[in-house]
Amino acid sequence: MLDQTRLPGETAWVSARTWQEVVTAIRGMVVRGAPVIGVAGAMGVALAAQAAAGEDIKAARARVREAGAGLREARPTAVNLAWAVDAQMALAAAHPGPASALADDLAAAARRLHADEVGRCERIGAHALALVTRGARILTHCNAGALATGGYGTALGVVRAAHAADPTVRVLVDETRPLLQGARLTAWELERDGIPYTLIADSMAATMMAEGRVSHVVVGADRIAANGDVVNKIGTYGLAVLAREHGIPFVVAAPTSTLDPAMASAAGVPIEERAPDEVRDLRLFGRAAAPAAAPVANPAFDRTPHRLVSAIVTEQGVHRPPYDRTLRAAWDAALAEAAGPSPAQPVGRSPAA
Amino acid sequence: MLDQTRLPGETAWVSARTWQEVVTAIRGMVVRGAPVIGVAGAMGVALAAQAAAGEDIKAARARVREAGAGLREARPTAVNLAWAVDAQMALAAAHPGPASALADDLAAAARRLHADEVGRCERIGAHALALVTRGARILTHCNAGALATGGYGTALGVVRAAHAADPTVRVLVDETRPLLQGARLTAWELERDGIPYTLIADSMAATMMAEGRVSHVVVGADRIAANGDVVNKIGTYGLAVLAREHGIPFVVAAPTSTLDPAMASAAGVPIEERAPDEVRDLRLFGRAAAPAAAPVANPAFDRTPHRLVSAIVTEQGVHRPPYDRTLRAAWDAALAEAAGPSPAQPVGRSPAA
Repeated sequence: MLDQTRLPGETAWVSARTWQEVVTAIRGMVVRGAPVIGVAGAMGVALAAQAAAGEDIKAARARVREAGAGLREARPTAVNLAWAVDAQMALAAAHPGPASALADDLAAAARRLHADEVGRCERIGAHALALVTRGARILTHCNAGALATGGYGTALGVVRAAHAADPTVRVLVDETRPLLQGARLTAWELERDGIPYTLIADSMAATMMAEGRVSHVVVGADRIAANGDVVNKIGTYGLAVLAREHGIPFVVAAPTSTLDPAMASAAGVPIEERAPDEVRDLRLFGRAAAPAAAPVANPAFDRTPHRLVSAIVTEQGVHRPPYDRTLRAAWDAALAEAAGPSPAQPVGRSPAA
Repeated sequence: MLDQTRLPGETAWVSARTWQEVVTAIRGMVVRGAPVIGVAGAMGVALAAQAAAGEDIKAARARVREAGAGLREARPTAVNLAWAVDAQMALAAAHPGPASALADDLAAAARRLHADEVGRCERIGAHALALVTRGARILTHCNAGALATGGYGTALGVVRAAHAADPTVRVLVDETRPLLQGARLTAWELERDGIPYTLIADSMAATMMAEGRVSHVVVGADRIAANGDVVNKIGTYGLAVLAREHGIPFVVAAPTSTLDPAMASAAGVPIEERAPDEVRDLRLFGRAAAPAAAPVANPAFDRTPHRLVSAIVTEQGVHRPPYDRTLRAAWDAALAEAAGPSPAQPVGRSPAA
């Protein structure tokens, strides 16, 4: 894995050889982004099976179950992790053996998931061209790019497709405190792709909107509830309110693997509270940025109610309100695709009854 | 001056012995905050007169004019700096001499301005008690504290008065990127005063409001136009939109020295654009937070339209919309006070005709 905690200063790769090392990488945000932590989780399950490839199939299945339980809990908010791990566990539970074949099949499934997520991103980008006007000024938050998805990106996939279609497209990048995924990762990706951008502090987004410097807000998602409520990086909800105030479309780009049809609304989605040092262990011009023991709140995500979401783009198309119906249709289409010959499929989770 | 760039890690004092050193301190934000840079500007003019105390009065006046012109331009947005410098220049222009008496009188006027600003803050705090309910959860942005005003504070003066009246009052402190005046300065002031607070990234304010954790937003101002539009630290406008969305009172606390009756609306107020390194020269856990040459926008202030402002509190009282009338009355009351025996007075600037 490319170590996302060291970007943009350093391009360092980390190898995980056990599922426990995958958990550590996910918790420590060496790998982060809803779709790609799903891929990492699936790979972690495969690693556990590989370690048990010499055992009998029952023992191997037990090792996979243990790994799955541990990986599933590495981070609570993005649904993709639990979903991908559950799909691997379902594969293992039904697997006839021997253990070496189980290991091979889980590894192949994890690689397929990775390819599928990239394919879904490319389709999202293509669909979103219907939404993004010429000369767009796209504001994005956090990193929903190649780094977050295993390639191409969701929100940044939209940016990439829009810029490829119209080179006058420009991007405003929210730095995205506390962990600065916008400044560290999105800016780095856009520089590599030669897409012109301007970095701003999160608190500058409102004034950029008021000055007419934003035509679209495009973000990714960590989980989308059945009613279209979106859980995403902290700061997303505020942007949605501001976009509505300024009459700017607020677009969420996410693969169907980010949908959670079993979750009626965002109210039920757990919001991860992370360590206080992420907020206070900051140095500006080499100097401490806060009292060392300052009491801190650090929710990593927030909930955006569906009424503030102008459109949700999945690989199945552009979805408009009322979302309960359109997202269900997208989910069903993805399931139908998975049953057919196409490589892009969410499996192993069924819509709420 | 207490060096505000080194807080909270280091308590270091800086002495300015020339007006040019005062300009450097204001530009470099060793001293920042609208009311206190007015005081620093007045002191700078006095330093210029002191250096010319041995010259004839005409030469001394010329030195004062030169210093005033330089000090006035040190920062463009807060009106207090230009206002305080202009008042000193008016005093000098009318001064009969000798130059040593001019120097003494300008120094006395600067010290009086300092005392007046602190007095105005204390009156603001007392008036604001009418607005702040029991058990208030006050969200504040930037630092409108003792550091910004020479003592007590405007927005933090409201917090201090509210907490003194009701010890269950709590504070949410926006870190206030890019220069982190909330994390560095407001948190430091509240710790010293033993007022309980929680530090948050700016992007967390919206979710705190949605969760019912904010009862009032209270901020200071760098300039208030005749119609009640408020120019303040970048991020203020977004908070005002969010407060309105959540039905939370948005209160601006500022002395009448921050009013600019000659400015019809905020549209005419110049917004300082500061250096890009303030946004990108940041280290999180010891690592670079952005590409070294990332293109950056860095407006230091924003404009909040009066329709989003629930109340403005000056030392003259609590003002409600329509502000054009109530602020004019506050201005006139302050002028009347200045003509009388009271020590609190804005002088030297007259309302627009």
